Amino acid sequence: MIRVTIWNEYLHEQESKKIAAVYPKGIHNALAEGIRGDGLEIATATLEEPEHGLTEERLKNTDVLIWWGHKGHLRVEDAIVDRVQQRVIEGMGLIVSHSGHKSKIFRKLMGTSGSLKWREVGEKERLWAVNPSHPIVKGVGPYIELEHEEMYGEHFDVPEPLETVFISWFAGGEVFRSGITYQRGQGRIFYFRPGHETYPTYYNKQVLQVIGNAVRWAAAANPSEVVYGKVPPLETLN
Amino acid sequence: MIRVTIWNEYLHEQESKKIAAVYPKGIHNALAEGIRGDGLEIATATLEEPEHGLTEERLKNTDVLIWWGHKGHLRVEDAIVDRVQQRVIEGMGLIVSHSGHKSKIFRKLMGTSGSLKWREVGEKERLWAVNPSHPIVKGVGPYIELEHEEMYGEHFDVPEPLETVFISWFAGGEVFRSGITYQRGQGRIFYFRPGHETYPTYYNKQVLQVIGNAVRWAAAANPSEVVYGKVPPLETLN
Amino acid sequence: MIRVTIWNEYLHEQESKKIAAVYPKGIHNALAEGIRGDGLEIATATLEEPEHGLTEERLKNTDVLIWWGHKGHLRVEDAIVDRVQQRVIEGMGLIVSHSGHKSKIFRKLMGTSGSLKWREVGEKERLWAVNPSHPIVKGVGPYIELEHEEMYGEHFDVPEPLETVFISWFAGGEVFRSGITYQRGQGRIFYFRPGHETYPTYYNKQVLQVIGNAVRWAAAANPSEVVYGKVPPLETLN
Amino acid sequence: MIRVTIWNEYLHEQESKKIAAVYPKGIHNALAEGIRGDGLEIATATLEEPEHGLTEERLKNTDVLIWWGHKGHLRVEDAIVDRVQQRVIEGMGLIVSHSGHKSKIFRKLMGTSGSLKWREVGEKERLWAVNPSHPIVKGVGPYIELEHEEMYGEHFDVPEPLETVFISWFAGGEVFRSGITYQRGQGRIFYFRPGHETYPTYYNKQVLQVIGNAVRWAAAANPSEVVYGKVPPLETLN
Repeated sequence: MIRVTIWNEYLHEQESKKIAAVYPKGIHNALAEGIRGDGLEIATATLEEPEHGLTEERLKNTDVLIWWGHKGHLRVEDAIVDRVQQRVIEGMGLIVSHSGHKSKIFRKLMGTSGSLKWREVGEKERLWAVNPSHPIVKGVGPYIELEHEEMYGEHFDVPEPLETVFISWFAGGEVFRSGITYQRGQGRIFYFRPGHETYPTYYNKQVLQVIGNAVRWAAAANPSEVVYGKVPPLETLN
Repeated sequence: MIRVTIWNEYLHEQESKKIAAVYPKGIHNALAEGIRGDGLEIATATLEEPEHGLTEERLKNTDVLIWWGHKGHLRVEDAIVDRVQQRVIEGMGLIVSHSGHKSKIFRKLMGTSGSLKWREVGEKERLWAVNPSHPIVKGVGPYIELEHEEMYGEHFDVPEPLETVFISWFAGGEVFRSGITYQRGQGRIFYFRPGHETYPTYYNKQVLQVIGNAVRWAAAANPSEVVYGKVPPLETLN
Repeated sequence: MIRVTIWNEYLHEQESKKIAAVYPKGIHNALAEGIRGDGLEIATATLEEPEHGLTEERLKNTDVLIWWGHKGHLRVEDAIVDRVQQRVIEGMGLIVSHSGHKSKIFRKLMGTSGSLKWREVGEKERLWAVNPSHPIVKGVGPYIELEHEEMYGEHFDVPEPLETVFISWFAGGEVFRSGITYQRGQGRIFYFRPGHETYPTYYNKQVLQVIGNAVRWAAAANPSEVVYGKVPPLETLN
Repeated sequence: MIRVTIWNEYLHEQESKKIAAVYPKGIHNALAEGIRGDGLEIATATLEEPEHGLTEERLKNTDVLIWWGHKGHLRVEDAIVDRVQQRVIEGMGLIVSHSGHKSKIFRKLMGTSGSLKWREVGEKERLWAVNPSHPIVKGVGPYIELEHEEMYGEHFDVPEPLETVFISWFAGGEVFRSGITYQRGQGRIFYFRPGHETYPTYYNKQVLQVIGNAVRWAAAANPSEVVYGKVPPLETLN
C-alpha cells in the first residue's frame, strides 16, 4: 500500500468563481479522485490547516507527497518546508506540479531559482515522451496533447535532470523540459509541468496516468537506515 | 592550436544541381570557411578519398573531428569506423552533424540505433538554449531560428545525454533534443541537429558560432596516457 | 512473471578441476539456484549451444538477460551480439557480470573499451552502497564484504554512469565503480563487478540479493512500441 | 584574467597552536600562494570580516569562489549565504573544500544534508582519477596519495554528481566520492574532499594542481543574461 498525501494551497478555488467552476472541490480532491486506484491510500492537506496539514505524524505516514502551490508560496512556513525536505532526504517521494516550480520546497531541493518564461493565453501544449520506457510514461503513448494550457518556456533554471521524461511543445513557439526526475537524499522527485488552475488539466486521462505512474515510481525507492558520523576503522591501518 | 578535420561524405553536392547550388564547394568547405578563426587549423576529408581521408596519420593529428554523412553511411568501412572510435576513446573530440545520427560511428559510440522521426517540408525550426552558460552556447543568445529546415522529432534513440544544451521546436508540432553532449573514453562528443543539405544552414552565423564553440569545448578535454591491464599491489595486502 | 535468461560461456568450469569444484554445475546454474524466487522464471544458455542458446525465440521471451563471459568473448558471433543489442534497445534488461566488462555486447552498448586494471591475488573487496535507497541495494546494508576476490581498479573505461550504486574498496589499494546503471534504447543495464570464477562469490547471500534486485529493477522498465521514420505534420505549418 | 576569492573561516589557525604551526598565515593564504599563477587574480576573505568579507562588491568581482569552513558553519549569516547562492546561479564558480560538505552554502546548493562518515586518525588516502581527461585532472596522473588525512566515508548525502572525477581509497577500509562536479543555475561547482586543518594537504603539489585546474574549469562557463517572466507569443497561435 502506497500512502499518498496530496497537498494543495487551495486558494484559487476558494477565491475565484471561475476556477471553482473547474475544480469545485479543489485541485487536491480532483487529483485524489483522478488517481484513485489499487494500492494507493490517499489523503489531502492544505495551506490553511494547522501546520499546513503537514504535521510530523502526517509526513511520517506519507510515502509520496504531491505538491500544488502558486500564490501562497511565501505563506508556507520555513519550518514546514524544512520538515518536508527532511522527509524527502529520508526517502519520501515528491511530485511537484506546475507552478510549484517556484515553491520553497522545490527551490530548496534543487538549489536553483526555478525561474522560467511564461504566457497565459490558453495555447496548445503537446508533451512528448522522450524516454518511452520510463515507468512514468507507462500507458501514455508518444505524446499528451492539451488544447489549452499556460505556457512555460526555457530557460528553466533547474539542475541538469537525472532523466528527462517529457519535453513540451507550445503553439506559441517555445519548448520546456516538462517532466524531469531528480533524487535528493533517498527520495525520488518528479517535476511535472501541466496543471494551470484555470484549465481542466487534472481531468485529462493521460495527465492522471502520468501522475499515478509517478507516484508508483517514486514509491519504488527503498529507503534504508543510514548511519552517519564518527566511525571506528574497519581495517588495521597500514 | 586546435587541429580540426571536417569530414563530409560529399555525395549530395556532386550528384544534385540543386544542392550544389547551395554548397558549391561542398558542405565541408562551407563549414571550414564558416568556422575559420583564431587558434584553429582546419583540414577536410571525404568519403571517396583513400581510407575516406581518415588515415592513421590524419587522425593522429586531429584534435576534433566534425562528421557530416547521410546517404553514404553504409559505404564507410568498418575498419575506419573502428579507427575513429579508437581515437575518440584516446581523447579526440567528435562533432556529429544532422543526419550523422545514423552514421556508423555515432551508433557505435552511443550503443543505440540513433532512430528518430523526420519530415522534409522546409518548416521553421527554433533551437532553444536550455543551458545558457554552457561554453557551446557562448555568444548565441536565447535561441537560433532557422526559417527552413528538415524536421527531426522525438523519440530520438540516444542514451540520456550528459548535458542537454539545445532543444528544438518545429512549426509542425514536434520537439527534439538537438544539442547534446556525451563523453566516451577520454573524448568529448557533441551531436548538433541542424544542417540539412538542401538549406543554407551552414551559412547561418549562429549555427557556425555553435560549431566553433563546440570545437573549442571538445578540445578542452585533457587526454592523458592511461595504463590498463595487470598491476602489482600498491599496499601490503591485509 | 519476469522471464530471466542466465547466459554463461561455461568454459572455465569444464576445463579446470579447481573451478569445477567451486561451480560443479556451472556459474549459470549456481546463479539460477541462488536467485530463484517469487515471480522469476529462469532459463539458462551457454556459448556452445546452437546460436549460443540465444535464438530469436529465446530472446523474444526474455525480459532480463544476465551475462557471464571471459575467455570466450571473441567466440561469441557478431550476429548474436547484434541480436542481443537489438533486444536491449527494444527494452530487454541486461545484467553484465564481472569479466563481462570486455564482452562484445557490453562494449557495443557502452561505446567504450571497457578496459581496467586488474590483479588476481585473492584480496579482500568491500563494495560500498553509495545510493542506499536504490532498488538494487534493497536489503543489502551499507556494504558487502568478500574475503577473496580478483581486484579490478580504476580507470574503468565506461561512460559516466546514469547512477553509481556501488563503489569497491580493495585491500591492495584500489577503488572501482562496481555497480553502475545505464539505459540504452528502452532497456536498462546494470554492470556488477564481483564474480571471479575461482571464488564462491555467487553463493554469497548479499551478492545474490543484489543480482535478484537488479533483475527486478531492470524489468521495471516499460517498453512500448515506438514509431520512427517519416511522419506527416501534426500542425498546419506556419 | 580569472578573479578568484578564497574564503576561509580562519578560526582553527587562530585558536590552535598546532594548526597555526601548519598554516601560520591561515589556510586561505596557503591556498593563495599555492595556486598563484598566470591568469589568476586572487583575493581572500574570512568569517570575521564585515559581511564575512563577501560584500556585494566583492562577489560581483569574483569569477570563482573557494570555500573552506568547518566549526564556524552556523556563524555564517543566512543573508550572505543567499547572496553567494545568487551569484552561483548567475554564473560564479564555486569550489567547496573538505569540511565545507556541511557548510550552509553547499547544502543550500545541493538540497541534501551533506552528511557522511568520518574518522580522524591520520590514515592514508589515495584519490583515484576516474575521469582522466577531465580538465580538473590535468597534470595530476592516475592518483594522488596523501600519507595522513582525515577519513570521509560513504554514504555521502549529495545528489548524483554530473561527473565523478576522483574517488578516494582509505587505509581504514572506506571509499568516498572525493571530486565531484555539479551545475546550479549558470555556475559550475566542484567539491574536493581533502584538506583537513591538521595536515599539510594544501602544500601538496597535486592537490594544488587540482584546485588550480578546478578554478580554470569553473571559470570556463559562459554566463549570459537570461530573461525570465512573462513573454509575448513568438508565433501566431494555432
